[in-house]
Amino acid sequence: MPSIFSKIISGDIPCYKIAETEHCLAFLDIFPVQRGHVLVIPKKEVDHIFDLEDELFSELHLFSKKVAKAIKQAFSCEKIGVSVIGLEVPHAHIHLMPIDQLSDMNFTKPKLKLQPQELSEIATQIRAYYTP
Amino acid sequence: MPSIFSKIISGDIPCYKIAETEHCLAFLDIFPVQRGHVLVIPKKEVDHIFDLEDELFSELHLFSKKVAKAIKQAFSCEKIGVSVIGLEVPHAHIHLMPIDQLSDMNFTKPKLKLQPQELSEIATQIRAYYTP
Repeated sequence: MPSIFSKIISGDIPCYKIAETEHCLAFLDIFPVQRGHVLVIPKKEVDHIFDLEDELFSELHLFSKKVAKAIKQAFSCEKIGVSVIGLEVPHAHIHLMPIDQLSDMNFTKPKLKLQPQELSEIATQIRAYYTP
Repeated sequence: MPSIFSKIISGDIPCYKIAETEHCLAFLDIFPVQRGHVLVIPKKEVDHIFDLEDELFSELHLFSKKVAKAIKQAFSCEKIGVSVIGLEVPHAHIHLMPIDQLSDMNFTKPKLKLQPQELSEIATQIRAYYTP
């Protein structure tokens, strides 16, 4: 069965898209740890990120770098935190989010509940700063 | 003033080294979140990881991949978690650590206090699986 991320890539499940390349996709996490929390994934369905071949692995990270720069410009924050956990969805994904303190990137705290209108505005805001 | 990581690179501060390349270094975090917690850094002192030029940024991540594979072989664990926070030391660094559950990568919990003997054994164990 395709992962939920593969369903997002195929368009069977909608997403708040930030950016897309031939092999990678970035979209909002709809259960964000922080406002501006973005997921960056390879379109190829591989569970563990370190099992990606070097070329795609590098491409994914360079794409993440561009997305992170857009988030940093869209949100006033100290840093863009990066996290790869991978225990929930068996499709490699990089979490990016604005952080000002350590606790901002604590995945064990309750997730934010944002309305579609707000998610849409956040996506628009980040997209405005994305440079391919 | 050089960062604490630059002092580790220059050898002014000792470390439990895992692996080294011309531009990158991996060593144990001596205040680990998990046993097997490794820091991967570029030798160039740059604060925000996304400010590294593409070439070094990719090299650092591909080096991290090799280190992560060694940690995964040395420790029985579900995944190797990755985290970039960067709020404490202004020298870009990637945290890698064995994880089995989300709370394993919670940086807000008290750090482990390991003795030099145990840190040395952990480093030896990971190094044994590292392939350049």
